[in-house]
Amino acid sequence: MQLIQSNAITKERFLGVRALTESICSSLVPEDTVVQPTEFVSPPKWHLAHTTWFFEQFVLTKKPYYSWYKEDYSYFFNSYYNNVGDRVIRAERGVMTRPVLQDILDYRRHVNSEMAAILEMDLTPDLYDIIEIGLQHEQQHQELLFYDIKYILGHQPSFPILDFKVKLKPVTEQRFVPISEGLYIIGYSGEGFCFDNELGPHKIFLNDFAIANQLVSNKEYLEFMKAGGYEDFNLWHAEGWDFIQSNAIKAPLYWHKTTDGWKHYTLNGFKEIHPDEPVVHVSFYEAFAYAQWKDLRLPTEFEWEVASSQFDYGQLWEWTYSAYLPYPNYTKAEGALGEYNGKFMVNQMVLKGSSVVTSPNHSRPTYRNFFHPNMRWQYAGIRLAKSI
Amino acid sequence: MQLIQSNAITKERFLGVRALTESICSSLVPEDTVVQPTEFVSPPKWHLAHTTWFFEQFVLTKKPYYSWYKEDYSYFFNSYYNNVGDRVIRAERGVMTRPVLQDILDYRRHVNSEMAAILEMDLTPDLYDIIEIGLQHEQQHQELLFYDIKYILGHQPSFPILDFKVKLKPVTEQRFVPISEGLYIIGYSGEGFCFDNELGPHKIFLNDFAIANQLVSNKEYLEFMKAGGYEDFNLWHAEGWDFIQSNAIKAPLYWHKTTDGWKHYTLNGFKEIHPDEPVVHVSFYEAFAYAQWKDLRLPTEFEWEVASSQFDYGQLWEWTYSAYLPYPNYTKAEGALGEYNGKFMVNQMVLKGSSVVTSPNHSRPTYRNFFHPNMRWQYAGIRLAKSI
Amino acid sequence: MQLIQSNAITKERFLGVRALTESICSSLVPEDTVVQPTEFVSPPKWHLAHTTWFFEQFVLTKKPYYSWYKEDYSYFFNSYYNNVGDRVIRAERGVMTRPVLQDILDYRRHVNSEMAAILEMDLTPDLYDIIEIGLQHEQQHQELLFYDIKYILGHQPSFPILDFKVKLKPVTEQRFVPISEGLYIIGYSGEGFCFDNELGPHKIFLNDFAIANQLVSNKEYLEFMKAGGYEDFNLWHAEGWDFIQSNAIKAPLYWHKTTDGWKHYTLNGFKEIHPDEPVVHVSFYEAFAYAQWKDLRLPTEFEWEVASSQFDYGQLWEWTYSAYLPYPNYTKAEGALGEYNGKFMVNQMVLKGSSVVTSPNHSRPTYRNFFHPNMRWQYAGIRLAKSI
Amino acid sequence: MQLIQSNAITKERFLGVRALTESICSSLVPEDTVVQPTEFVSPPKWHLAHTTWFFEQFVLTKKPYYSWYKEDYSYFFNSYYNNVGDRVIRAERGVMTRPVLQDILDYRRHVNSEMAAILEMDLTPDLYDIIEIGLQHEQQHQELLFYDIKYILGHQPSFPILDFKVKLKPVTEQRFVPISEGLYIIGYSGEGFCFDNELGPHKIFLNDFAIANQLVSNKEYLEFMKAGGYEDFNLWHAEGWDFIQSNAIKAPLYWHKTTDGWKHYTLNGFKEIHPDEPVVHVSFYEAFAYAQWKDLRLPTEFEWEVASSQFDYGQLWEWTYSAYLPYPNYTKAEGALGEYNGKFMVNQMVLKGSSVVTSPNHSRPTYRNFFHPNMRWQYAGIRLAKSI
Repeated sequence: MQLIQSNAITKERFLGVRALTESICSSLVPEDTVVQPTEFVSPPKWHLAHTTWFFEQFVLTKKPYYSWYKEDYSYFFNSYYNNVGDRVIRAERGVMTRPVLQDILDYRRHVNSEMAAILEMDLTPDLYDIIEIGLQHEQQHQELLFYDIKYILGHQPSFPILDFKVKLKPVTEQRFVPISEGLYIIGYSGEGFCFDNELGPHKIFLNDFAIANQLVSNKEYLEFMKAGGYEDFNLWHAEGWDFIQSNAIKAPLYWHKTTDGWKHYTLNGFKEIHPDEPVVHVSFYEAFAYAQWKDLRLPTEFEWEVASSQFDYGQLWEWTYSAYLPYPNYTKAEGALGEYNGKFMVNQMVLKGSSVVTSPNHSRPTYRNFFHPNMRWQYAGIRLAKSI
Repeated sequence: MQLIQSNAITKERFLGVRALTESICSSLVPEDTVVQPTEFVSPPKWHLAHTTWFFEQFVLTKKPYYSWYKEDYSYFFNSYYNNVGDRVIRAERGVMTRPVLQDILDYRRHVNSEMAAILEMDLTPDLYDIIEIGLQHEQQHQELLFYDIKYILGHQPSFPILDFKVKLKPVTEQRFVPISEGLYIIGYSGEGFCFDNELGPHKIFLNDFAIANQLVSNKEYLEFMKAGGYEDFNLWHAEGWDFIQSNAIKAPLYWHKTTDGWKHYTLNGFKEIHPDEPVVHVSFYEAFAYAQWKDLRLPTEFEWEVASSQFDYGQLWEWTYSAYLPYPNYTKAEGALGEYNGKFMVNQMVLKGSSVVTSPNHSRPTYRNFFHPNMRWQYAGIRLAKSI
Repeated sequence: MQLIQSNAITKERFLGVRALTESICSSLVPEDTVVQPTEFVSPPKWHLAHTTWFFEQFVLTKKPYYSWYKEDYSYFFNSYYNNVGDRVIRAERGVMTRPVLQDILDYRRHVNSEMAAILEMDLTPDLYDIIEIGLQHEQQHQELLFYDIKYILGHQPSFPILDFKVKLKPVTEQRFVPISEGLYIIGYSGEGFCFDNELGPHKIFLNDFAIANQLVSNKEYLEFMKAGGYEDFNLWHAEGWDFIQSNAIKAPLYWHKTTDGWKHYTLNGFKEIHPDEPVVHVSFYEAFAYAQWKDLRLPTEFEWEVASSQFDYGQLWEWTYSAYLPYPNYTKAEGALGEYNGKFMVNQMVLKGSSVVTSPNHSRPTYRNFFHPNMRWQYAGIRLAKSI
Repeated sequence: MQLIQSNAITKERFLGVRALTESICSSLVPEDTVVQPTEFVSPPKWHLAHTTWFFEQFVLTKKPYYSWYKEDYSYFFNSYYNNVGDRVIRAERGVMTRPVLQDILDYRRHVNSEMAAILEMDLTPDLYDIIEIGLQHEQQHQELLFYDIKYILGHQPSFPILDFKVKLKPVTEQRFVPISEGLYIIGYSGEGFCFDNELGPHKIFLNDFAIANQLVSNKEYLEFMKAGGYEDFNLWHAEGWDFIQSNAIKAPLYWHKTTDGWKHYTLNGFKEIHPDEPVVHVSFYEAFAYAQWKDLRLPTEFEWEVASSQFDYGQLWEWTYSAYLPYPNYTKAEGALGEYNGKFMVNQMVLKGSSVVTSPNHSRPTYRNFFHPNMRWQYAGIRLAKSI
């Protein structure tokens, strides 16, 4: 991770990020915050606790005067940092009803107050980086909270109506923006924060290509469905075909066929599908099959990054046909933070852009998000490209 | 199920049973009431709702003036009654955070009040049986609540300390009570309530045998463990051996080896193991292996029932070496209530007696409880027998 | 197991039993003899070797002059005798292409010749029992060979036509034979061989009942199918219903719906279903559901044994509604042979009678066969009973 | 796939390739040819039949005069070509004992003779491509046969000794060959045959790097093992760590720890490990972890291709840190042959080079082999690289 300028971390910014996390959870009741309906979803309470543990583990306990708020919490709320001790395994997060939500909110308050004190009086230079990472880390969990809350509420029989301010903008007329072949620089080279996986600006040669200025809409995706896209194996990767067969997938996640046509669960309840909104909650396999059906393709992450100034993004993460691999000069950080990115660089695909549920100031063209090709609960959509 | 005398169902009795259910849950917080750590455990909130649904489904909605409290609840809280419509499948009970605990408590209050009115003014004879069954059903769930609450709290890393009044009596000196061979009558023939599976008194011939007047104690069971009982395949059923191997089982459920010896989680927290208390939370496989090691055996359900007047019971359910099969003249009731017992009469073993967490007035010598031989979360212990 | 009279074991009888095993395999090619299409099926080559290993392990190597034919074979061909060392686990028998079929036939010849020498000149009294058990054991594997050969050939796409002399007799008109209530003696008390699980004659009290003199026919079973028997959950055990749902079972094993109606694979190829032949290859769950549909029931093993002189049997093993449990005075033999029966006495159901593929002289009314309630590849059918 | 010059397909070349397939199987007995010990291994008999089916399906049946040798074979021996009809699913290939080995050899002879006639007299231009692909396809199966035969023989308890002429050359002193940054051309541009996945020469920019002139040796890999490489999670991808934990992997495939040190199974039997031979049968995860431990890295497929003229290769396929993705202008062929490569372009890693068991004339620097990162039964080794 890259060091940022010291004046970027203020008590106000810190507490602002922290408060946003709680605000995302504000419409949840205690019952909603503890369940784990599937392994890749974490209970909201766990996110609230884990992001707090991060500061306690990596900042507060570095201060000689500080002692753990509750010693067990370090075991309860470690996620995957093998370097800092044992942890509750991921699949069992949904068993942990205690400490209860209120205990975690108290824990957050305690850590916030200790951190505020440090930020005001005791902020030594070696802590800048780690606090910045902690804030970026918390912002990533803010986005995961949206995914997980939607999954939890969207998978119970009563389809609760909530009042999240999450709204996708309709797509407008689509055209393809041409980009000329040539050498381009990829990777982050500015001064602010970035993750280690985007560091190391380096040259890439691209052929001529064109990229859509709009995402694929629900209307367009419904045409693919009506044309039998989910039934034609020629459009699919072999593993994609197996995936939709064995999970009986016929539509994006959260879509339900009713006597009144397709509808979907949203963070505002069960709704009509708006034809002009971009299609969301598709896997890489579905994005690829859709592109095959259109005789087009997905862009690579390099094409996307180079072209990104030519279109608007930020509605949905956009699947690329690039595997998540290290940049040429990638080096893993030492110790626990080296576990942040590098150990996931296999079997996943890169997504670019950001989404309506990405935290403010947590987006840049070089950002490399990544998910397994079968994942659908994240806010991911489709932008098409073609060679020209 | 057998009809009981009408005066046995009063408003007071009804509300007393209902109140006890809530009282068992009184030390739980909302977070505790929604999780399902494993398929055979149900969330406490689900028990609270399902026992209420029973009265709404089988009593209230039979009244022409009544309409469902919330129509969806009939789908949400049906357990396994295929005859009364769709239901949330068992494995997904732990996803249902909504309706929340308070909604369910309101639901209980509503149904209680409707039922109280019926019990005071509108109790037609055809409802007696079904209300009685509803109360017996609720008492069974009361006992399951103890099992499930213990499982939920005992499987989270913080081992919460609660204040349940559950206490096992120490065993005293053991002797074997001889019973002579002969024809005996098995099954229920009194006037009060009993389940359909204990009906049909019938003759059984028993050989001479003797049965222990005490349960096996923790001290005795520890001797078995120290003698290598869990490592000697000759003591085990083939499937029992596979079970303990593939689950790495070395002790009863809730036992943990600490630097300070074996301890166990109880409804009052993590505790020393009291040597004289009866051993609890063993599977049938373990009960059998222990008996093999002692060169003794488990009693059959018939031996147990015949001898039951010769010893005290009621501490723990006692594994028998009898499979759960129908009595000679067993007939399944018509409709949904016919699903109560008969469809489980395969692959399970009979347990006799009752336990410290069995509801008051819910025990009789003819009672036939049943579990799969690998189940350990119920309050089950070991009584030995021998042929003589 | 019970000692039999010494003159019953002759070289001729020994070699006769041994030759029959090879004869059952005579229409197989080497390719057929090595595969294991599912865990409960063993490769025919394995049966040929394992039955031979039994005599080498338990008889020949007891002679000081004898040394193992090939030392590795004792590891390769042990089935489940934990007491005699390591073994190839069941699920991996189908990997063992070497030693090849011819090696195993040579092994059989070698062991036969050594055994013949013992039977002629060196047969000490302590060997009688074990040789008798070895022969009975081999006869059990002869029947398993029929099951496994049918499974192997019936599960490949070409449905090979073979020429086995296996033919079921048509059922004739059915009537119910009444039996009066009373005390009866159950278990083996003759002088010849029997297994330990049938020993210990003991009294059983039976109520009045009646039992069918015929098995259920294909025609009758087809009526059950046409009436929607496989779609009505009220007829099934809960676990039976799960079993047929999750395996999409709609008919007995080996039945296939063709444009020309139901047909089935037999040891003589793919054939029309003969309406009057007894239905075969049903699970206990199906037998139970059929009986429920007829408002009748399956007999207990005790009823069957008591009534067995009143009807013909021997076409198919007949499911009873008795769990496989020990008789009152059952004691497990010491050492490896104690693993023969006792450790399977849980989770299985008793079948009585014998079948067209049972070896000659391997049937008696007290014989207790046993299978899990979901098993269908054995030659099992349905005889009905009722309480009167 | 790219058309090749017509004179490259002669009857002699055709029959030569076909004969080699049989020759690879010549030391197998019928029993060896039918088993499928794990899903990714196919029975040798299946390879013999499937490669033959390819010519019948795609060449012979295009001739109006030809009719199927046996119609069922088209169903039995289709592998994954959804476009040409139903097929026996991969996991069930090991059930198919019939047609027997001799039937398949007859089938091969028949198809060979029909094909020879076409090659001599009736070779229309449209058949060139497809016959060439058929031969390349058969050569790929020749290499798979080595993998699968080794897996089958190496996973049975007797470790058979065979006499394959497969011998790895010792590695010699290692040095790193530097390559300068710049634009390079990647992909096939010659005149002979190549697969569609290597077509479309295109520019790639590479940074300065250096690549080892030798593979990693057994001696070097043993040092990694001794240093605790398999126990240090910091060296592994998260999914690699899970893979070795859940499969208890502590060494390359076929290695066994004996009282006399590590040994391994080879195509010549169970042997000492030669310290100077290149390490083989490691997964991508292990190759990566080894490189991490050395503070080096694996080359990308582009680095490997550019540098390939600077070192010898052909001993083992070499893992690269490149995911198997389409080249910029990749287009899938129409129809069944379009299923050859494109549908596998997700979740797999590229391997470059070729191996001692690769067929003659089946290697070129642009060849792109691919396997999932956990696969170990192929002849894969490790070449290191570094950024400079």
